[in-house]
Amino acid sequence: MAQKSKTLQNMSEEQLNERHADKMKKKKAARDKIIATKTIEKGLTIVHTGKGKGKSTAAFGMVFRALGNGMKVGVIQFVKGKWGTGERVILEKMGDQVTMSSMGEGFTWETQDRQRDIDAARIAWDKAKELIMDDEHQMVLCDELNIVLRYDYLPVEEIIEVLQNKPPMKHVIITGRNAKEELIGFADLVTDMTMIKHPFRGGVKAQVGIEF
Amino acid sequence: MAQKSKTLQNMSEEQLNERHADKMKKKKAARDKIIATKTIEKGLTIVHTGKGKGKSTAAFGMVFRALGNGMKVGVIQFVKGKWGTGERVILEKMGDQVTMSSMGEGFTWETQDRQRDIDAARIAWDKAKELIMDDEHQMVLCDELNIVLRYDYLPVEEIIEVLQNKPPMKHVIITGRNAKEELIGFADLVTDMTMIKHPFRGGVKAQVGIEF
Repeated sequence: MAQKSKTLQNMSEEQLNERHADKMKKKKAARDKIIATKTIEKGLTIVHTGKGKGKSTAAFGMVFRALGNGMKVGVIQFVKGKWGTGERVILEKMGDQVTMSSMGEGFTWETQDRQRDIDAARIAWDKAKELIMDDEHQMVLCDELNIVLRYDYLPVEEIIEVLQNKPPMKHVIITGRNAKEELIGFADLVTDMTMIKHPFRGGVKAQVGIEF
Repeated sequence: MAQKSKTLQNMSEEQLNERHADKMKKKKAARDKIIATKTIEKGLTIVHTGKGKGKSTAAFGMVFRALGNGMKVGVIQFVKGKWGTGERVILEKMGDQVTMSSMGEGFTWETQDRQRDIDAARIAWDKAKELIMDDEHQMVLCDELNIVLRYDYLPVEEIIEVLQNKPPMKHVIITGRNAKEELIGFADLVTDMTMIKHPFRGGVKAQVGIEF
């Protein structure tokens, strides 16, 4: 490695440019070759999990992108009161391209009533199932569903069964920490948002535009 | 662990509910205590890196959330032609709340002209610097800046110097693989998007609403 840097340092600008052009050419060829083998189009089951930030935010980013592409999107919130005004304002701007539903009486970090949470999770999931199975919405976000599954308020087998039988082109995004192994096993695309550094550690509080 | 599950299995619904209420009460108390210590408000430097998906998507999610909160946001794209119509349509819907700029002649995976890329990176960074230093925008997204830094098209020291001198409440988000150690060291919030499972492996191609 040290040897390599030294060689690079001794190169003229022209040599560096040539070397770069050559490298990029090979990279492009390799990339084109890979892309050519990717021919399947299908609705994806996508899971965002992990302790880091960005699970819901990236999911909302996908929702906004889909909306920008003219798709109809369903959004189900499995944790009550988690959305800030930020997401809501933009989703509402998109009119009837969006079907939103949030658990009116559902799980929050404040609640201590397990039976009420189970009932609310069931109602939210029934709504989600409807959006996943219909022919109208092309993408459905089940935000924080993993939390509900983790507490065993809904059986993961039931969720997977619905995903197995969904319309083939439907995209479903599921977010939340501690995704169940069964769901990870079933999903097409799984990303773990890994926390490297968090400002909370330094006493910084949740702020508008960042956390909500 | 097996012992614990067995005990849980022997509990009545009522006992389970009680146990849950108790657990959640403790959780809430711990959480409230932590939040009470978080009092600092400041503009954050946020880095999304890693090989997984969602780096730019989560950044756009934050941008949309900020826009929904009425903030003015600047977005600089350091890789040419990467944005799909999805993001663009929504950003344009937000009118003059958004200042967009993308490297007209900049780095792409297709280019093999190093000197032209360096020049384009410089122009894009000059524009980013303006948005970061002004008093008008509250958030600036430097999308894929990490790629430009990785190729040493811009010195990371210069980026950090600007971040050190930015208005105190300004939020700056920097995305892209292979974030430089110096930048990770400086940033307030760093998330690594870790790929657990990717549908490309199974021959699935990039699709509207998912990749662009």
